[in-house]
Amino acid sequence: MTTKDITVVGLDADDTLWHSEVYFERTQRRFDELVGRFVSADVDVHAALTAVERRNLGRYGYGIKGFTLSMIECAIEITDGAIGVEELAQVLAAGRTMLDHPVDLLDGVDHAITELADAGYRMVIVTKGDLHHQEMKVLASGLADRVERIEIVAEKDAATYRRVIASMDVEPHEFAMVGNSVKSDVLPVLELGGHAVHIPYHITWEAEHADHDGTVPTLDTIADLPAWLATRS
Amino acid sequence: MTTKDITVVGLDADDTLWHSEVYFERTQRRFDELVGRFVSADVDVHAALTAVERRNLGRYGYGIKGFTLSMIECAIEITDGAIGVEELAQVLAAGRTMLDHPVDLLDGVDHAITELADAGYRMVIVTKGDLHHQEMKVLASGLADRVERIEIVAEKDAATYRRVIASMDVEPHEFAMVGNSVKSDVLPVLELGGHAVHIPYHITWEAEHADHDGTVPTLDTIADLPAWLATRS
Repeated sequence: MTTKDITVVGLDADDTLWHSEVYFERTQRRFDELVGRFVSADVDVHAALTAVERRNLGRYGYGIKGFTLSMIECAIEITDGAIGVEELAQVLAAGRTMLDHPVDLLDGVDHAITELADAGYRMVIVTKGDLHHQEMKVLASGLADRVERIEIVAEKDAATYRRVIASMDVEPHEFAMVGNSVKSDVLPVLELGGHAVHIPYHITWEAEHADHDGTVPTLDTIADLPAWLATRS
Repeated sequence: MTTKDITVVGLDADDTLWHSEVYFERTQRRFDELVGRFVSADVDVHAALTAVERRNLGRYGYGIKGFTLSMIECAIEITDGAIGVEELAQVLAAGRTMLDHPVDLLDGVDHAITELADAGYRMVIVTKGDLHHQEMKVLASGLADRVERIEIVAEKDAATYRRVIASMDVEPHEFAMVGNSVKSDVLPVLELGGHAVHIPYHITWEAEHADHDGTVPTLDTIADLPAWLATRS
């Protein structure tokens, strides 16, 4: 192609721009210890929490508040009410700590965003989850002024991306999405005829696992993104 | 004026299109009874919960999940941990019941929206709160196909309305906002030079109370909205 094709870059946020899943995992480990003392050794606390989370996903959606409510529900349920109020207060406090945690950018993010801006790409953050908490994180990240729009969406499917791409006034072939979830960031965009690249994070939440044939474009780090875009543009 | 001025109508959702605060109030009454048994008679459970909610507003934002977390926190705090796990499970369940409650349109809403559509007004729902729950409610309301956009926002201030009005490609004087909160639905829109009309609901959440000089345009019911707009257009 002789004309520049990709003009808009969509950026996933949690575990693409800043750390997130690592805090869920840390909290979940503390939860396992706390609740494990009240159940027999053969009970898989982690699996029980995942089951409660999945059961509540349609009701709570994504984010830390729903996660905290599911932890409390699971703790009461699997201990048959034997868990103490003191332990539940600790679970509540763990949720507050997660929400209050400062935004911790992944290595290379700041530099890569600057390079993309300098190269003239328009950028939009496309993130799933809790509206209030995601807005707080975008503000705290220092990146808000360097992207054109922030789209906080309830579900990242093809219909959502069609709307986001249209809101940037481009066609799918002019749009490239970047993120750590093949299921949420890559496949629905490819389905629309857009570009997408997977940058794996070292932990993937179980609900984000996707089957794919291994041909998904992948980068080791966001530092490689400007060069990848340049070869496609 | 000889040319039609208002072309876009912004509709608040909770307690303007469908009932919401009534469910918070019902849950809060149940909470007062449940927790009241564990504290001395001079403790104002209601006031304590409001204080915890306000303390958490910057962290949790609006919505039922944050409300439920604040109820649990308040119950543990004001009973000094004397509340039982069984009672906390009931509080959790009350939150789930609120989230699962079917959408209950206010009287006259369906007819008024039809009249506005027939009269050629473009409509946008502008609602605050939990992204996931608000999207579920819009879908369940049967109104989603009759409005052009749904904007779920973290805060309803002048900056938010400026963005929403721009996204509809009109000027503030072509936009009229309708809602039950003078603070969130009326004053910021008037500040921008737009139109706004207050339709009070019989309960107003304490955080939504606003001081104003009594000259705010007010309607008794949404059934009067088409006629009000016609006089302004």
